[in-house]
Amino acid sequence: MESTPTNPSTFDFQPVTDLKWDKHGLITAVVQDAQTGQVLMVAWMNAEALHLTLATGETHFWSRSRSELWHKGATSGNTQRVTGLWVDCDGDTLLVQVEPAGPACHTGAVSCFFRRLDAPRSK
Amino acid sequence: MESTPTNPSTFDFQPVTDLKWDKHGLITAVVQDAQTGQVLMVAWMNAEALHLTLATGETHFWSRSRSELWHKGATSGNTQRVTGLWVDCDGDTLLVQVEPAGPACHTGAVSCFFRRLDAPRSK
Repeated sequence: MESTPTNPSTFDFQPVTDLKWDKHGLITAVVQDAQTGQVLMVAWMNAEALHLTLATGETHFWSRSRSELWHKGATSGNTQRVTGLWVDCDGDTLLVQVEPAGPACHTGAVSCFFRRLDAPRSK
Repeated sequence: MESTPTNPSTFDFQPVTDLKWDKHGLITAVVQDAQTGQVLMVAWMNAEALHLTLATGETHFWSRSRSELWHKGATSGNTQRVTGLWVDCDGDTLLVQVEPAGPACHTGAVSCFFRRLDAPRSK
């Protein structure tokens, strides 16, 4: 008889068996606004951050600069509620679709991608 | 007197002065369908791949597995025409908006992110 989870998480998620973590135990996570499609930010998750993201339904990351777990919005209030979590074909990148409570960027910008490198081409 | 470029590229792009390349000389590039907003793939660029992407208006990457420059679609025909190229706040990730000529994924899927890790929550 299979055991029944006594503390089901917010998500009934498939077993994650083939994620490719890098040598630091991290995986790249692209965060996208589920409503607008805007790409908001790219960050990194370790296994604990992914577990907490799935369990709580809010994004958690691993801060490479601070070397600590990071609950997005814990300080700013700009949490991100997860509506979809996807893995790419080779298992080394996640796509996290969210409903953001506020700007994703620490600068206050909605998205961290606010600087354009190319100039729009004329028609 | 300032010199005038004799071979202007497809793009009039701003000088890229503060990109943060990793220790392998690479930067993460998120590729998004400009029309639908769908996140198609994540790959890596070195300086040459970025230069070629800007100069030709089609995505070029550095293949980490094959250790070679990679013109997306050169073999498959599934090229990606660049319509916008953005850099994030801390300069270590690019967002490339494209019009794809075909599926982004080598599996034939439109997007490499076709496997869902979480199950949609009930209302």
